[in-house]
Amino acid sequence: MKLKKIEHIGIAVSNLEEAIKYWEEVMGLKCYNIEEVVDQKVKTAFFKVGDVKIELLEATSTESSIASFIEKKGQGVHHIAFAVDNTNQALEEVEKAGVKLIDKQARQGAESLKIGFLHPKSTMGILTELCSE
Amino acid sequence: MKLKKIEHIGIAVSNLEEAIKYWEEVMGLKCYNIEEVVDQKVKTAFFKVGDVKIELLEATSTESSIASFIEKKGQGVHHIAFAVDNTNQALEEVEKAGVKLIDKQARQGAESLKIGFLHPKSTMGILTELCSE
Repeated sequence: MKLKKIEHIGIAVSNLEEAIKYWEEVMGLKCYNIEEVVDQKVKTAFFKVGDVKIELLEATSTESSIASFIEKKGQGVHHIAFAVDNTNQALEEVEKAGVKLIDKQARQGAESLKIGFLHPKSTMGILTELCSE
Repeated sequence: MKLKKIEHIGIAVSNLEEAIKYWEEVMGLKCYNIEEVVDQKVKTAFFKVGDVKIELLEATSTESSIASFIEKKGQGVHHIAFAVDNTNQALEEVEKAGVKLIDKQARQGAESLKIGFLHPKSTMGILTELCSE
C-alpha cells in the first residue's frame, strides 16, 4: 500500500464552538468549513496547517462513536487519516496483511471523501482511516 | 502564533521493533532514522509520509513518560508537534493566551530540534509540541 500523505487528523471535542475558538485564537488557524455528517452523528470543523487538515469532531447524539470515545478517553486525537489512491483497494491490501477492518467497503465521509477505518486493535492503538477522492 | 506545518506525530509503542515492522510492512513507509533521546528516556524511530514525520516512541525506562502514558491509555497517538519559527517566542505567545506550559523554555529534542510542550489540560486533551530548527 502507498500512503500519499496525512489527509487529516481527527480530534474529538466536547464543544465544537469552544474548540474552534481555541484553534483560531490560540493556535492561529482559520476554520474554513463546518459540516454535519448525519450518518456518523457528528458535526465537524476543518482547519488546514501545511497540507494537512485538522478535523474537529463533536457528537450530535449520545450514540455517536465520538461521544463514547470522549466518555472513555476524554477529548483528544481520535484518528489519523491517510490519503491513498483507492480506498477499497487499500482496505483489501491491509486486510490481506492481517489487519482487522472496521469498514470492509469504503463509505462516504466528510468533504466527499471515500473513507474506510482499520481497527485500532490491529494498528497498535491508532484508529486509522484510509481515504481517497 | 503562526503554525507552519505539522512537523511530526508522536506515537507511543510498547515494542519499537514490532512497531517498525508494522509501519514498514503493512503501511508501506520506510524507517529512515532510529535515535535514543537519553534525556527523555525514549528510543525513537522516524518515518515520513508526505511532508509529515511519524515518530514512534518506546520507553527505555519505566520512569519514562511514554511508559506511564501506555500504562494509563495504552499504545497510540502521544503528541502532535507543530513547526514554528521560534519555539521560545511561540511558547511565550501561547502562555499569554492562557495556555499552561510543560516547558517554559525550549529544550533539545530528537533530530536536533528545539522543542517545548503545552499542557494537554489547556489544549483540549492534545499533548502539543512546538518545535523549531
